Amino acid sequence: MDPYPRPGTWRERLYIIIFHTYTPAGRLFDTLLLAVIMASLGVVMLDSIQAIHLRYGSWLYGLEWIFTGLFAIEYLLRVICAPRPRQYVTSFYGFIDLLAVLPAFIALLMPDAQYFLVIRVLRMMRVFRVLKLTPYLSQADFLMVALSSSRQKITVFLLAICTLVTMFGTFMYVIEGPANGFTSIPRSIYWAVVTLTTVGFGDMVPKTALGQTLAGMIMITGYSIIAVPTGIFTAELANAMRSATLQRDCPRCQKPTHEPDSSFCNRCGNPLFPPTEKSQPEESAH
Amino acid sequence: MDPYPRPGTWRERLYIIIFHTYTPAGRLFDTLLLAVIMASLGVVMLDSIQAIHLRYGSWLYGLEWIFTGLFAIEYLLRVICAPRPRQYVTSFYGFIDLLAVLPAFIALLMPDAQYFLVIRVLRMMRVFRVLKLTPYLSQADFLMVALSSSRQKITVFLLAICTLVTMFGTFMYVIEGPANGFTSIPRSIYWAVVTLTTVGFGDMVPKTALGQTLAGMIMITGYSIIAVPTGIFTAELANAMRSATLQRDCPRCQKPTHEPDSSFCNRCGNPLFPPTEKSQPEESAH
Amino acid sequence: MDPYPRPGTWRERLYIIIFHTYTPAGRLFDTLLLAVIMASLGVVMLDSIQAIHLRYGSWLYGLEWIFTGLFAIEYLLRVICAPRPRQYVTSFYGFIDLLAVLPAFIALLMPDAQYFLVIRVLRMMRVFRVLKLTPYLSQADFLMVALSSSRQKITVFLLAICTLVTMFGTFMYVIEGPANGFTSIPRSIYWAVVTLTTVGFGDMVPKTALGQTLAGMIMITGYSIIAVPTGIFTAELANAMRSATLQRDCPRCQKPTHEPDSSFCNRCGNPLFPPTEKSQPEESAH
Amino acid sequence: MDPYPRPGTWRERLYIIIFHTYTPAGRLFDTLLLAVIMASLGVVMLDSIQAIHLRYGSWLYGLEWIFTGLFAIEYLLRVICAPRPRQYVTSFYGFIDLLAVLPAFIALLMPDAQYFLVIRVLRMMRVFRVLKLTPYLSQADFLMVALSSSRQKITVFLLAICTLVTMFGTFMYVIEGPANGFTSIPRSIYWAVVTLTTVGFGDMVPKTALGQTLAGMIMITGYSIIAVPTGIFTAELANAMRSATLQRDCPRCQKPTHEPDSSFCNRCGNPLFPPTEKSQPEESAH
Repeated sequence: MDPYPRPGTWRERLYIIIFHTYTPAGRLFDTLLLAVIMASLGVVMLDSIQAIHLRYGSWLYGLEWIFTGLFAIEYLLRVICAPRPRQYVTSFYGFIDLLAVLPAFIALLMPDAQYFLVIRVLRMMRVFRVLKLTPYLSQADFLMVALSSSRQKITVFLLAICTLVTMFGTFMYVIEGPANGFTSIPRSIYWAVVTLTTVGFGDMVPKTALGQTLAGMIMITGYSIIAVPTGIFTAELANAMRSATLQRDCPRCQKPTHEPDSSFCNRCGNPLFPPTEKSQPEESAH
Repeated sequence: MDPYPRPGTWRERLYIIIFHTYTPAGRLFDTLLLAVIMASLGVVMLDSIQAIHLRYGSWLYGLEWIFTGLFAIEYLLRVICAPRPRQYVTSFYGFIDLLAVLPAFIALLMPDAQYFLVIRVLRMMRVFRVLKLTPYLSQADFLMVALSSSRQKITVFLLAICTLVTMFGTFMYVIEGPANGFTSIPRSIYWAVVTLTTVGFGDMVPKTALGQTLAGMIMITGYSIIAVPTGIFTAELANAMRSATLQRDCPRCQKPTHEPDSSFCNRCGNPLFPPTEKSQPEESAH
Repeated sequence: MDPYPRPGTWRERLYIIIFHTYTPAGRLFDTLLLAVIMASLGVVMLDSIQAIHLRYGSWLYGLEWIFTGLFAIEYLLRVICAPRPRQYVTSFYGFIDLLAVLPAFIALLMPDAQYFLVIRVLRMMRVFRVLKLTPYLSQADFLMVALSSSRQKITVFLLAICTLVTMFGTFMYVIEGPANGFTSIPRSIYWAVVTLTTVGFGDMVPKTALGQTLAGMIMITGYSIIAVPTGIFTAELANAMRSATLQRDCPRCQKPTHEPDSSFCNRCGNPLFPPTEKSQPEESAH
Repeated sequence: MDPYPRPGTWRERLYIIIFHTYTPAGRLFDTLLLAVIMASLGVVMLDSIQAIHLRYGSWLYGLEWIFTGLFAIEYLLRVICAPRPRQYVTSFYGFIDLLAVLPAFIALLMPDAQYFLVIRVLRMMRVFRVLKLTPYLSQADFLMVALSSSRQKITVFLLAICTLVTMFGTFMYVIEGPANGFTSIPRSIYWAVVTLTTVGFGDMVPKTALGQTLAGMIMITGYSIIAVPTGIFTAELANAMRSATLQRDCPRCQKPTHEPDSSFCNRCGNPLFPPTEKSQPEESAH
């Protein structure tokens, strides 16, 4: 699959360094990129603290320019050395990489626009791009399989949660009323979410006896039904991890995989390990 | 089971559209119904916000009439085209559908009655009626099997929770007393529920050293026993998911469950559906 | 085991009614007892509400006498009809039953003593005595098996929690100090319990940047390690539920139980279901 | 492994008492050590309470000296009787034991230094040194196996949590802004951790409708993804518990795990330890 199996030109060598991790130079590049991403995130955060902004605002402003420059250079290098530049630019990762460059330019043109902060923080997603190449993420794949196979069940669960909080929120609005801080149904639903998820900020609390009784029921509901997504995900994950079938061709019909404890082929009924054959065992059950 | 296998008359065609989803028209009808339900919910919520009520109250009042009219028309159509109208009217869904119409009429006659809000929000349950017909809900059935088979265990668990909060609540009432906000045993029990379920509003907090020690024990109890409903549900769900196997006792060794496509028992090698017995195989793969 | 297999005298009939549930009269007795227990609990709770105490205090006082009288009569009847009265009086349940009578007498002699409240609420434990006889509790047995077999693991877990909260509490005391409400190490440990268990009252909160960083770590720790007791209990419960072995005497060595999917006896190596024997299957695998 | 198989000299007898638990004297030593550790912890805690410090400060000061003296004597004894003193001193436990002595000396020289409190509390870790020798900790080993085999998955999970709280925190900072208490991005991230972990102190709460909506989404996210570490750990623990089986590849069919007392493979009926091969069976039942 590798478009440059034996790198010769500088473009090919650059491609290996920037897009792959398996060479020391590639690993160094990824580490540096990670450091720059984290540093640019740190600048965004420090700049949001009033005291630091007043004192070092211009320094951080300068740093932001430097990081943006680095990201721009990186983006250009990626476009230059990619085997099919157009394909890279229009790909998901190409978009993410461009996103790291653009917002700073826009934000510098219109420096008051707080909302560009969000895009600057989106740079953090590039961390996953870099880590994608490490062995850790094979584990994430595992989680993804379990999550995606329980997707439907989780959708049903979230729908049920939404219904519950709407119902409970309306009930509390009717019971407690604006006098006790439940000023509208949406605000009461917000309270119901806070309570059902066992967060419990305490900015709104029921004051009436009936409201406290209903609140108690909501809490016990929330406390108990947390079992549902946990159960769903655990069961799916256990399934994903248990994918251990017996790898052995049936001597008669050649069916290659069987349940882990099978003695007979469940398609043709032949013994999988006939007692007469004295041969060396060649297959192993994982 | 379908009462009109080959729809001819307009009543029959209407029945297919309103009660089923498998035709494009039926799917459209369900989507529209869902939109109207959500819109009527939105109106209830917006109307509860003081500022919006003062400004757009009469508009929302009008919209409520329109939605009620639509639900009334829908209810009449359902009664007209149902193969057995009386059976539909007295059924659970017939009741839910009627509920969507009545409250608005009553609420419009007595517009101050806040309590009709609750019934108006109950319309939300119709969402499940509509979604019932989508493939998603086969997943909900799955959850229901697991939930209903762990019903008894969950009842015991809830009973234990009730006993714990009553005990802890009384202890805290005695230890902290009205001076620290624990003004009565029911209120202290409410606090115990808030604490045991790890919600922790903070509207009542223990002030004495002994009270804080007991509170710490309640919290650790609540934090730990959340494992119980989770464990119960996970184990039941894993059971329910494992039952997607071929349920057929092997004629020789009685092994009850097999892989879905088995022809022979993988324990004893016997044919699961021996050719000599000439009956149809009653395999039931769930 | 039943000491009166064919009840004849009134004492024997009374024994059946009071100590057993399997006759209609016995079931009625248990239901009444449950109602009296709940009513006496209700009186304790209502009496703790200031407004009700001032208005109906003397009525509730009278009701307490009546309930105490009923419990006293019940206790006497139990002593009279028990086959071995001395054994009953010294048993655990005899003590619980006596506890239901004594506190009220003492509390009436010294009516200010708030602490007797606790003993009055302990009557609630009699609910379990009554329910013990219902099928529900066979499920609780199930839970008890799982809980007791994970007892050691849970002890280790609780020990780790105690160490964590002591460490974190001391760190926070040093970082935040009395100025921010962390007035002593025990109080800081209380805060650490509130935070680690994700209760989060909000009566004490970190104010310094370092304190908030450490608090964030405590929260993520608490949020994550909730997986530990849940995992322990789930795995144990799954074990307790899976006790499904193959019940089949080995034709050669007569070993009676095998792993669910065994084809051969793992003690003597003989096929459990030899192909030559054409007999009817007599055993079933549960 | 025991360096003194038949203790004769006083050094050898002391070694057995101090480093081992299997003699009554050794058990007594460990119990006393545990008591001294807990007492020294208690002194640290009591001393941090202002009222007690003012009244009994000098007493607690004296007690700290005594405990330090005891730990110093213990440390000297350990160095003297250890078979290889240098190896003990440079070992992990040697360091922990020294740590119990040093801080008090330093703290007494500079009594204001609050930060030495932390080191004094680190003595608590010695509790684990003492308990290490009890059977309970074999259970902790169990947990450790499960935790360490799910380490990678948990790292991925924590990384995802960090990304989520950074994103959500920035969004909330932009939406709510300093006027509503979200004074900087780091503080908003702190709030996001408090909310996502369902702790919910309530010291910062969203005030705007959009902020409350996003907060509700954060809460439901936090409430749902708690399933992920729980599922991971449960599946791993179930695996770790299931490994209490006979690990031996069947010579013919290679089935790798068997019931602990198996002589024959229950899949193919082959002897697991055939008599012809005259080697000792290397069965290893974990």
